[in-house]
This record gives sequence, structure tokens and C-alpha cells, in this order.
Amino acid sequence: MNGVRLRILVLGGDGYLGWPTALNLSSVGHEVAIVDNFVRRRWDEELGVDSLVPILTLDERIGAWCRASGKRITSYVGDLCDGEFVATTVADFDPDTIVHYAEQSSAPYSMLDRSHAVSTQVNNVVGTLNVLYAIAEHNRDIHLVKLGTMGEYGTPNIDIEEGWLDVAHRGRTDRVLFPKRPGSFYHLSKVHDSHNIEFACRIWGLRATDLNQGVVYGQETPETSIHPDLATRFDYDGVFGTVLNRFAIQAVLGTPLTVYGSGGQTRGIINIVDTVACIRLAAETPAAPGEFRVFNQFTEQMTVRSIAETVAAAWPGDSRIEAVENPRVEMESHHYRAAHTGLLDLGLVPHLLSETLIGSMFSLIERHKHRILAEAMRPTVSWRSTSSALASAN
Amino acid sequence: MNGVRLRILVLGGDGYLGWPTALNLSSVGHEVAIVDNFVRRRWDEELGVDSLVPILTLDERIGAWCRASGKRITSYVGDLCDGEFVATTVADFDPDTIVHYAEQSSAPYSMLDRSHAVSTQVNNVVGTLNVLYAIAEHNRDIHLVKLGTMGEYGTPNIDIEEGWLDVAHRGRTDRVLFPKRPGSFYHLSKVHDSHNIEFACRIWGLRATDLNQGVVYGQETPETSIHPDLATRFDYDGVFGTVLNRFAIQAVLGTPLTVYGSGGQTRGIINIVDTVACIRLAAETPAAPGEFRVFNQFTEQMTVRSIAETVAAAWPGDSRIEAVENPRVEMESHHYRAAHTGLLDLGLVPHLLSETLIGSMFSLIERHKHRILAEAMRPTVSWRSTSSALASAN
Repeated sequence: MNGVRLRILVLGGDGYLGWPTALNLSSVGHEVAIVDNFVRRRWDEELGVDSLVPILTLDERIGAWCRASGKRITSYVGDLCDGEFVATTVADFDPDTIVHYAEQSSAPYSMLDRSHAVSTQVNNVVGTLNVLYAIAEHNRDIHLVKLGTMGEYGTPNIDIEEGWLDVAHRGRTDRVLFPKRPGSFYHLSKVHDSHNIEFACRIWGLRATDLNQGVVYGQETPETSIHPDLATRFDYDGVFGTVLNRFAIQAVLGTPLTVYGSGGQTRGIINIVDTVACIRLAAETPAAPGEFRVFNQFTEQMTVRSIAETVAAAWPGDSRIEAVENPRVEMESHHYRAAHTGLLDLGLVPHLLSETLIGSMFSLIERHKHRILAEAMRPTVSWRSTSSALASAN
Repeated sequence: MNGVRLRILVLGGDGYLGWPTALNLSSVGHEVAIVDNFVRRRWDEELGVDSLVPILTLDERIGAWCRASGKRITSYVGDLCDGEFVATTVADFDPDTIVHYAEQSSAPYSMLDRSHAVSTQVNNVVGTLNVLYAIAEHNRDIHLVKLGTMGEYGTPNIDIEEGWLDVAHRGRTDRVLFPKRPGSFYHLSKVHDSHNIEFACRIWGLRATDLNQGVVYGQETPETSIHPDLATRFDYDGVFGTVLNRFAIQAVLGTPLTVYGSGGQTRGIINIVDTVACIRLAAETPAAPGEFRVFNQFTEQMTVRSIAETVAAAWPGDSRIEAVENPRVEMESHHYRAAHTGLLDLGLVPHLLSETLIGSMFSLIERHKHRILAEAMRPTVSWRSTSSALASAN
């Protein structure tokens, strides 16, 4: 902890990243409360999938954390789309910082069909609007740390900067919001959020940090490793699973590592341990009043094919990479160079992708191999269609 | 009509601009249907205000148009937020073109409080998403003509182009979406729409024209002038009234023309007759498949103060301009030079602001002067507050 003990409200604190973030912030001495409505667990039921690693209920996890660390975490159960709930919760906990993970976070889920596109945008945009209003009404000094995504930018032919772009045009100059051209209705929801947040900073003087995060991999942090009851989820299905985690599962299963199209798509990636560190750094060094601060939260950039090759090389047995038809509409070969110095300047020491890390993921997967639903990994959601049937994995 | 007879669905065809647009398209021989849920009339009731000019029900208007012109207009009554309704309507009418006016269109209304901000963004974003899905499902060749606003751009320190910007950055170039930094949750909803529409063009090959419209003034078009039963609404209240219409009312009432702040804010403005012409030009020259075409739909740019001075000069009696505290958060002195050649290239012949036009507005106002609720013109919605009390005008 960087001196000051903060009161931090973690929205979506029952999720893949929200939970380890809450533990890390609690472990270093901040006072943490979690808000969640458990909708992520319901999406598992809807899709007929589950976290590879079993996870306990939020109450059980919080109890386990209290026993392991002696620290207490408060919880508030409710939906951010309920504006009164958000206002009451913010007033009750009176936070210094709000870390906002509580969004539908899957691009394929948002592309399933019309109702999933609509529910994703409504859930994410309305939830964030309610948070902005709650801050503006209760205490405009609260620092909002909001999770965005590198996918907001898309793949422009120019270098990607951190949120803002200095432009010269017809003899005049301005610092403008970096133009966004994302690749799914989910990514678009985060673009909408970013625009709404920037406006709230401008009119109400709020302080906000928008973190455009890369693809996260890994499942363990120092805190979640203390006891199995503190584990966070590990998703590998075609809808919520992220690419590196999915490749690791495929390697362990001995099935081909399925790359969408040519695999030349470049992604920023980040270790879960660094995600947690980034949130803490952002929280402990808040944006200034009225500042819409943007960091690109990733540590390396790689093509999807080279991620597959790295995982395949780390696997001690045989493994094979297979190109499958790309269900998405995206460029498979493009310029990609994205700035990501802001968090390094705050002190981030990256944990880069290594054989050791991938090896620890393999061990984790081996331990839970009996829980894998191989069918759930198929890419079933087509960007070109307006309605995709879900693979029935159960 | 430019040769081809089109089937055109006008969403929001009961509104201020939707109605005259429907009449104009019908008058030149296109087959027109209107979709509306009459929510605009309910907002009047909520705010305790009314159009200066009495308007008939949609059925009565359509009947009057049939009697006046011999042309039929079909109507569908329902809410665009109901995805099934939108899909069914599009399949039933099978349009070549969809003109989309059906959005909450007032910045102050969206800034009333949290619930109005949320309802504005949900109404506008979800309605447009449902329209995009209906097109993608029914016929991807349908041309969407969507009403946006010049307010999407905000007031950048560089020249505003039409939707796209050629950028050179660190030795590379790209054509990017023009960066947006708008001034209300309403304007933001249109920014969200623009991003969603561009994506739909990219993944589904839809054809769309996004019209970033300036502030519209006037109330009469050749078609609405045929008979009083064909009149469109005229709003002057502090929430839905636009600035030039409001100044004209203040001049007639002999009250000061109230300019927000210094009045140095520059706006693109357009005559209602030109709005209607622009829609027809856009419809008759559709965007290409996959094209996200953007036009800036205004004909002149003026500061708010010079609009007030022009109205004051046109009024034969005494009139006085008064600066009132600006309820909005905006720059009152800024660079503003916005391209607007796209529609001129399609053949638009602008009707510029003239004393004759303002004189005809004065006559209109005089005829309906007894209906004016002076109290309704007060700027009651503060951008800085999170909750503004409505002036009770009834």
C-alpha cells in the first residue's frame, strides 16, 4: 500500500478479475467492499458451461479470505442497472475509489443474436451511467477506475495511443479522444461507456481512469493461491474463454489449438497478476479532478498464431495448430503498435508470458481435466449471422 | 422524384420533422409508411407543455393528407425498443429505405436527472440496434437514413469533416471515424448510434447514411402548408424548443431574447424545408453496400448571439437581447468550421435564413399567441446538477 488506506468498492467483485483484485486490495490494507448480482454465474447456466476451476459462493469466499488473512470484505448484492441500489450502496459504503468490472465481458456473447446485443449494451451502458450519477450525487471526489478493453480501438493503420490523440488538421491542432472502431457489440458498449465517462468528467469534474485492457491470461495470484477456496474462475468455452486459456486447455486435451483464420490478428495480452497490480496502481494514484485518464493495460503484443505457437512449444507432449474458419469479421493481417507506458510510469513491473507460467497453467488444467466440456470450446457464434445457435454442451 | 419509386418507412413519422418528411416523400411519389409510438406527445404531457401550433392525431393527419393529395400513407403503431415489433414491421412493409427520426431528441430532457439520461440512451440505442437487426435479418440491401446531430462532434479546435478524418500520425496514415466529444447524454446517445451503425455496415454490409443535422428552424413546408390539418409541431419550451424558434416567440411576446452565457457558441443551422429536401436526396441516392456515409446536414453556421440579433432585427417592434446564466457546460467561444458539402453535391439548394422566413414565423406565432406558456421557456435544466426540477408550466 502506497501510504493512504483507501475505501474501495469493487463492482463485479465475484468475477474472474474482480475477485482477485478485491483480495489484492484487501491484502495490502485497503478497506474493500464487493458489489455483484451473480449474473455471470447465470450466464454459465444459460450457456451450459462452467469455470474449469470450481468456485465457491461469494459468502463462502469472503469467509475463507477472512480466515486466511484476518481481513474483512463487505458485500452488497444487487444490479447496477438498478439506479437506486447503486446510489444507496455508494452512499452507504462511502468509497474513495470505485473499481468497475461489473459488465458483460464477452464479445461472442454480445454477438449471439439481437437480444444478447441489446442486453449487453443496456447492461453495460446503464450500469455505468448509474455509477456516474451515484458518484456525482454522493461525492464528486470519488475516483472511478473503469475496465475498458483494447478492443475499443479496433485495428487502425496508425499507432494506438492511450485514449487521446494529438491531431494536426488543416493548419490547426487539437487533442482529441482516440477514434474507436471496435469489432463487436460488446466492445462497442465499452466505447459508449468511455464517451459517457469522459463527458461526466467534463461536466461534473469527476476523476476517472479508463483502463483499456488486453486479453488476460492465467488464473492464479498470490492471494488466490493461499487456499483452494479462494480460487477465481477459469473460462475456456467458446463464448467466455479467452484465447490463451483456451489454447492451454486444447494442448492438455491433445486436441489441435484452433486459430481463427490466418491467426495474424495481433492482441495486447496481460498476466492476471499484472491486471491486479494495475488496478492497485491506478487506485493509489488517482486521476485529477475532472481528468479522464486512459491507460492501455497490457504488457506484450502478440499475434494469435504466435500465442498458439508459444503454448504449443511449452507443452511437453505433441501439439498441433489448426486454422479454423474465422467466425468473426476482422482483419487477420494489420498494423498494430499500441502505446502502454502509462502504467509502467506508475510503477508496474510486468510478468511477461513465460514457459514457467504456461507450465503452471498446464498443471492447473491437469488437476481439473475431468471437468472439461470439450464441446464448449467450439466457436459457435458467427459475426455474419444475426442469430447463432448455442452449442449444447450439457 | 429521381426516377425510382421507393418504399420508404419513416420511423418517428408523427414528429416535428418526421411528419413533413413523410409528406414530402409521399408528394413526389414514393410509397410511404410511418412508424410511431406517440411518446413525443407523452413527453409534452410530462413536461406540461404543448406545440404552439395545434396538431391532429396521426390518423387524422394521414386522412387529411389523403384528401389533399390523393396519396395514401400507411401507419404502424409501436415502440422501436420492441425488437419483435420492429422485425415484423420491416418484414411487412418491405422497405427500400428506412428514415430513422424515432429518437428522444432533446439535450435538456436527457440532462433532467438520472432516469431521463438512462431512458434517453436506452430508447435511442436500443431502438437503433433493433432497426439494424431487422435490416440485417430481412434484407441487407435496405438503406438506413439515420438522423444524427452536429452536436455529436462537440467543438473541437480543428475543422469538422463529414464523419471521417484523414489522419497522419507517426509516419502512418488512416481514415478514421471523426472523434466525437459531445455535450449531453442525448448527444452521446447519437454518438453511440453512429458507432453501432458503422459496425453493422462493416460486418453485415449494410448501407447507411448518418445525417449530422444542425439546429432546425421553421415550421412550414410546401406540403404542410396545404391545409392547417397537415401542420407539424412547433416547440418553443426550454426543453424541446430549439433556439431560433424560441427567440422568435420571445420577440413576439416582447420579452428579452435570452442568450445562454456570452452567446459565442456557434451552431450549424438549417431550414425545415432543407431538412426535408436532404432526406429525400439521401434516400434517392443511397449509400453503397457496406458504406457508412456521413453528411453534415446544415446550411449556415452562426453564433447563438448572431441568431438572436438576426431575429431581433427582423422583428418590427422593440426587442432586447439578454444574457442569462448558461445552464449548460460548454465553451462559449471556440473555433468552429464544419464541412457540409456532401448534400450540396447531391443537389441541395439551400434556403438560407432570411427576414422573409423569420417574418413568416412571426405571423405563425401571432396566430397562435394565445397558446404560449411563457413560463415554459425558462432554462430549468442545469448540466451541473444531477437533478433539475421542471418548471411547472401547467
